Amino acid sequence: MVSESRKKNRVTLLDVARHASVSRATASLVIRKSPLVSTETRAKVEAAMQELGYVYNMGAARLRADKSLTIGVVIPNLVNPFFTELLAGIETVIDAAGMVVILVNSGDLVTRQETLLTRMREHGVDGIILCPAADTKMSLVERMAEWDLPLVQVLRHVTDDCDYAGVDYGVGMHQAVGHLVELGHRDIAFAVHGPVHSAYQERVDGFREAMEARGLYPNTIIRVPNQMAAIADSAELFSSGPGRSSAVVCFNDVVALGLSAGLYDLGITIGRDFSLVGFDDVADAEAMRPRLTSVATFPEAIGEGAAKLLLDRLTQPDLPPRKLVKAPQLRIRQSSARWSGTGLGRVQNSG
Amino acid sequence: MVSESRKKNRVTLLDVARHASVSRATASLVIRKSPLVSTETRAKVEAAMQELGYVYNMGAARLRADKSLTIGVVIPNLVNPFFTELLAGIETVIDAAGMVVILVNSGDLVTRQETLLTRMREHGVDGIILCPAADTKMSLVERMAEWDLPLVQVLRHVTDDCDYAGVDYGVGMHQAVGHLVELGHRDIAFAVHGPVHSAYQERVDGFREAMEARGLYPNTIIRVPNQMAAIADSAELFSSGPGRSSAVVCFNDVVALGLSAGLYDLGITIGRDFSLVGFDDVADAEAMRPRLTSVATFPEAIGEGAAKLLLDRLTQPDLPPRKLVKAPQLRIRQSSARWSGTGLGRVQNSG
Repeated sequence: MVSESRKKNRVTLLDVARHASVSRATASLVIRKSPLVSTETRAKVEAAMQELGYVYNMGAARLRADKSLTIGVVIPNLVNPFFTELLAGIETVIDAAGMVVILVNSGDLVTRQETLLTRMREHGVDGIILCPAADTKMSLVERMAEWDLPLVQVLRHVTDDCDYAGVDYGVGMHQAVGHLVELGHRDIAFAVHGPVHSAYQERVDGFREAMEARGLYPNTIIRVPNQMAAIADSAELFSSGPGRSSAVVCFNDVVALGLSAGLYDLGITIGRDFSLVGFDDVADAEAMRPRLTSVATFPEAIGEGAAKLLLDRLTQPDLPPRKLVKAPQLRIRQSSARWSGTGLGRVQNSG
Repeated sequence: MVSESRKKNRVTLLDVARHASVSRATASLVIRKSPLVSTETRAKVEAAMQELGYVYNMGAARLRADKSLTIGVVIPNLVNPFFTELLAGIETVIDAAGMVVILVNSGDLVTRQETLLTRMREHGVDGIILCPAADTKMSLVERMAEWDLPLVQVLRHVTDDCDYAGVDYGVGMHQAVGHLVELGHRDIAFAVHGPVHSAYQERVDGFREAMEARGLYPNTIIRVPNQMAAIADSAELFSSGPGRSSAVVCFNDVVALGLSAGLYDLGITIGRDFSLVGFDDVADAEAMRPRLTSVATFPEAIGEGAAKLLLDRLTQPDLPPRKLVKAPQLRIRQSSARWSGTGLGRVQNSG
């Protein structure tokens, strides 16, 4: 029924050509943005398209030209504002290229990701920027290569045989731990959450190495929940009991904001009794008081980098796989302070 | 070039049918999810599709069937976590219907929104959920009706001739103002930001009416910036000078979080010297201390409602336009407190 009424209303390219008093071939050149058409003719045809409400039928056109000027972006969640900033970077570059970003959310589930990628392929996107869901197999990337669908991995990677834009998480962990050690902290915990993937593993490994490099035991790695309120409720794990520490490095700023609220509830003053270092330095963290010390990972720049890798890949499909790995930068603010000995730290024998 | 290699690799439905030892017609019925096919045959064909890597060519299929099982969602920004929660609600319902959500971001720009809607139409989405960019004209909605593209407006509306899911902002403002007046506040400011649209206007009108209904002048409506850090810097506008008040109703929780940080910087204790009421009650606001009193607008439920309206519209295109307007609910927490007279409030003659 829908189909019928659509067909009846459909304005054809021939209608447009007639209305603009040009040939169908000329109208077609206008649509394909050919430089062979004069500005005047282009304006005339575009006016006719506007007037008649003509829409380029991408379904049919794609069968001819294999080009949709659309980029698919697959991310695992929208809860962490990190992804919002990443997207802003992707959109800046893709917009400037005259293309459009469509976004889908895998919920960090491989089966869902599979459905979404298939659907994106069916819609004929020109390429994909994928932050792979946890447990994504290398075979997925291989399959997309078989599909001949250009792909850039972002933030997380499952293979080296494919472009990747991300962060050097190891360096970031060294910066965070080094800063706290310089302030006199020795009982430093790491608060992690979320599913395990390359970016998770790199952060955990980075924390371990950074601690061991300074002769400290990296044995206080504590998992916290995902929801803000539940993270706040878990603050006690760090301030008392076996995980008791004087400072916490946080997996990301979401964890830092949650723990900050929880420590407030416990009557612990951050930046005096206790130190907190975030990770990512997202804009939202600017609402935290005392101001959050955080390792900036520049999500917007990573998004721009991923989009540029993809645009290059579209025009030069035979380039070897490339990596853009951004160096993070520690931003020192109020939430990290010198260990006073009067705070919560316990004495520990370090090796 | 891309086109060539794609064609070479393309597995046809005939290949699938042969592999599964069924007729092409039977394989086609499986793809169209016909009930005429036995479970056993369906399994056999689906296994063959899987094995050969067959992908339903939606571009071609749409020309035949006008169905993509894809819903387009157009939102004006991703910065406010409100939209993240709204999307979660939309995805729950659309997922359950076996369909897929693709999201685009208009940046609250009508021209960009126009491009995105056209592109969505070209991609053959089955319907659109649109939070109209500021300054969207009613003609856009009329055009989409001409396109025969089912549409639901969400949060903001430009016409009554089209389905809409949103919030009763007026009631929410009465709840916020009423609560503060009961606590003894009379100098109540309203902190607004962002572009002007129906939801903006309804909140401003609601604030005015709520104040006037209580014999108070609604003359302290102050615009603040959009970025978190800049909102914080504007807190002084409310705590001193001509806009000096004892309490602020915030346009949304983003504004509340920003002002909360700014008041902290000024040494003003929220919930004692000053009262703050947020709007939306997003999950992120749970990181604020003291805990934020906020008017819950239930974004996830609104998203679910919008998606249900759209699914109904797809199956019953001739339904009259419907409205789902959710009643908000004030959540009283720590950031609003009785006016002590020792705080920042000034005396005002009310009419």
